[in-house]
Amino acid sequence: MTSRQLSLNAFVYPAGHHEAAWRHPSSGADRIFDVTYYQEIARTAEAGKLDAVFFADGPALQGDVAFNAVGRLEPITLLTAIATATERIGLIATASTTYYEPYNLARLFGSLDHISRGRAGWNVVTTGNDSAAANFGLAAHPSHAQRYARAAEFVDAVTALWDSWEDDAVLLDRSTGRYADRSKIHEIGFAGEHLRVRGPFNQPRPPQGRPVLVQAGASNDGRAFAARHAEAIFTAHQRLADAQAFYSDIRQHAARLGRRPDLVRILPGISPFIAGTETAARDLQREFDGLTVPEYGLRQLERLTGEPAGRLGHLDLDQPVPPDLFADAGDVTDNSRSRLQVVAGIVERERPTVRGLLHRLAGARGHRVVAGTPEQIADTVEEWFTSGAADGFNVMPPSYPTGLEVFVENVVPILRSRGLFREEYTGTTLREHFGLPRPANRFTGVPRAVAGG
Amino acid sequence: MTSRQLSLNAFVYPAGHHEAAWRHPSSGADRIFDVTYYQEIARTAEAGKLDAVFFADGPALQGDVAFNAVGRLEPITLLTAIATATERIGLIATASTTYYEPYNLARLFGSLDHISRGRAGWNVVTTGNDSAAANFGLAAHPSHAQRYARAAEFVDAVTALWDSWEDDAVLLDRSTGRYADRSKIHEIGFAGEHLRVRGPFNQPRPPQGRPVLVQAGASNDGRAFAARHAEAIFTAHQRLADAQAFYSDIRQHAARLGRRPDLVRILPGISPFIAGTETAARDLQREFDGLTVPEYGLRQLERLTGEPAGRLGHLDLDQPVPPDLFADAGDVTDNSRSRLQVVAGIVERERPTVRGLLHRLAGARGHRVVAGTPEQIADTVEEWFTSGAADGFNVMPPSYPTGLEVFVENVVPILRSRGLFREEYTGTTLREHFGLPRPANRFTGVPRAVAGG
Repeated sequence: MTSRQLSLNAFVYPAGHHEAAWRHPSSGADRIFDVTYYQEIARTAEAGKLDAVFFADGPALQGDVAFNAVGRLEPITLLTAIATATERIGLIATASTTYYEPYNLARLFGSLDHISRGRAGWNVVTTGNDSAAANFGLAAHPSHAQRYARAAEFVDAVTALWDSWEDDAVLLDRSTGRYADRSKIHEIGFAGEHLRVRGPFNQPRPPQGRPVLVQAGASNDGRAFAARHAEAIFTAHQRLADAQAFYSDIRQHAARLGRRPDLVRILPGISPFIAGTETAARDLQREFDGLTVPEYGLRQLERLTGEPAGRLGHLDLDQPVPPDLFADAGDVTDNSRSRLQVVAGIVERERPTVRGLLHRLAGARGHRVVAGTPEQIADTVEEWFTSGAADGFNVMPPSYPTGLEVFVENVVPILRSRGLFREEYTGTTLREHFGLPRPANRFTGVPRAVAGG
Repeated sequence: MTSRQLSLNAFVYPAGHHEAAWRHPSSGADRIFDVTYYQEIARTAEAGKLDAVFFADGPALQGDVAFNAVGRLEPITLLTAIATATERIGLIATASTTYYEPYNLARLFGSLDHISRGRAGWNVVTTGNDSAAANFGLAAHPSHAQRYARAAEFVDAVTALWDSWEDDAVLLDRSTGRYADRSKIHEIGFAGEHLRVRGPFNQPRPPQGRPVLVQAGASNDGRAFAARHAEAIFTAHQRLADAQAFYSDIRQHAARLGRRPDLVRILPGISPFIAGTETAARDLQREFDGLTVPEYGLRQLERLTGEPAGRLGHLDLDQPVPPDLFADAGDVTDNSRSRLQVVAGIVERERPTVRGLLHRLAGARGHRVVAGTPEQIADTVEEWFTSGAADGFNVMPPSYPTGLEVFVENVVPILRSRGLFREEYTGTTLREHFGLPRPANRFTGVPRAVAGG
């Protein structure tokens, strides 16, 4: 297996990525708080030899629970439970640098990496919705710039904590009574504008050196952050040309920072409706779209465009989207802007009705939705992979668990037969699946270690 | 099984509770970052039908890692991994109200309770060591009073979040598209001096209504907090009379607050050296004591007495403890005072040499150490249980895993034959093991629910 290989993650969303998945009989909406449901999903992904399962997250109830299954288990604990039910698959959790403390989060991910023997990944987010702020005593959500400034310090502090114990710090010399070489366990002495963390860490270095760092922001701050820190980037692009431009931009940016561009895995989202014929696949998509609740979709659109709740209630669902709906798109909170641009682009190109736009957005929250036969899905995966748009994909099945089963059983074998995807795992860690090296420890050779006595 | 029954927890400490456990061949010191080690320990405890496994914690490297295995995995993730390897045993993790945010911690414990189907417990601590402060950007550790004031608000906020979804909030009505009854999902609107949390929570109510609340503080603030909130209390008492006085005090205090005193389980620590004869048990204890490193023990004593590092290095290990060593005991940080009093009491009663005191403290950090045959251990357990000193015990084996195996195989059957301990689990949740009811939801019947739209 010497040729360039795809990375494929299963992006797990409780009932599925389509907004109405919970209503569809193919989804396990009645099991979304049952750990065995997620363990089964992860075993399906592992049977397909996928790189990782990935969970989004936010510390707030987002979206209207009256019409959608928006509650969720906390992903680090959930992935720990998945770790014990699987052997190889990577385990990526989203966690917020705005609403966690570095020492706590370093411990949670460090423990997940120890428990899973090197399969943890951290999707670094600054949290883009303001309902979280009120759950943490803040009157207002910090600004985009403040959040990214804190995020940069946060990642520095957490990765330093993971390096705090050199790999050979533990001596375990029962005869002399020396447990560890204190000169190899380091205070990190991190002192930034937003965060101060002394250390040392209270556990050995994680098996991967550090869990894989993942990032998903598409704003300018997000891109800069990703180019500097991310080892994998989750993106949302509707069109090949946009994805190619992003791919090229990130790799150039990373190279300018002295990083090897091929060590940044760029993984757009893809939400596939799959059936034996293209017509059947489109019918399946229409079946899901037909289950959406317009009241819910309009509220989501209001959030996106910065309108107060109910402001779009007057729109006629069967008339075209008013051309001025996105006129003041520049005034929305900066964290929504990149997604809003994607939506405005759809309206400009496709001139949909309001209902049509709601259906378009219901697919995967702005990610790319495709419908076709397994061969057609494999074709578009291959096209993006071989034309400088992607190193692989974040697979977002419309419904869980069925949508992932269909993908693994029908699309993965085609990709494999084309030599694009592994037959078997060749490594045991997420870093190995992604082809990423284990990082050197920044403290190795630092002469004066200051350890907690 | 109608008679009053003991509660027995396995208090899991990586290599064991004796300070030198990691050097003893009976300990698994080489496996303390291996999840299967803890899963095996939990299965041993479950085979003995114990109530729970319990993990201490603190967000800092505490104690001198040069001479002791003081690193640790984060306990909530670790217990999640244990949950998937067991069926019935309770899972109690320590977590700090000073260094966590309520929304994050409510999610972690709520998820553990969902994942374990109702087996989670939270040992609420305010964190009594000042090395944690520097890991969270604080120049100084908050005062005892400040920490307890925040802790009281923290517990109120977290338990309110767990109540945020009424038990019947989820409708999952696929036909009408109504996922939840929004009038049964509540913002909590918590606004205190230290914390503000709006809610609603982003997951359904935990299976137990709320995880069992445990507390371990023996200071006056700690006792008041325990009498108000705790459903189980972990204590450290050397002598029966002291334990009886504490037991009586807490129950009276709880009764004055309108609580049913029998719904507060009081569980002293006991660290048993067990062998076929009393002599062999004492020899085993001496064997462990002989493995202690005096440099480590003196540093621990310096911390306890508020002396700077090295201040006690001049003491002759084989001379009696100087009578003025604890003279200024009243001046140490208030969080150490109750433990210091225990140590001063030992010195006053037993007049040990310095080495003798270090051995005494090496046993279980101030908890009661006993050595004897299985019958003798069972006798003292029964005596404390039947004389108003304890509702059960936090069992603290000198070494893991061996010490727990010996206890489960040899002492538990005697307690069972005396009708003091269960033959089989009669429930599936930790609340049921402890004989505690599932709490009512504070929001049930609250007419105006404000849900996240």
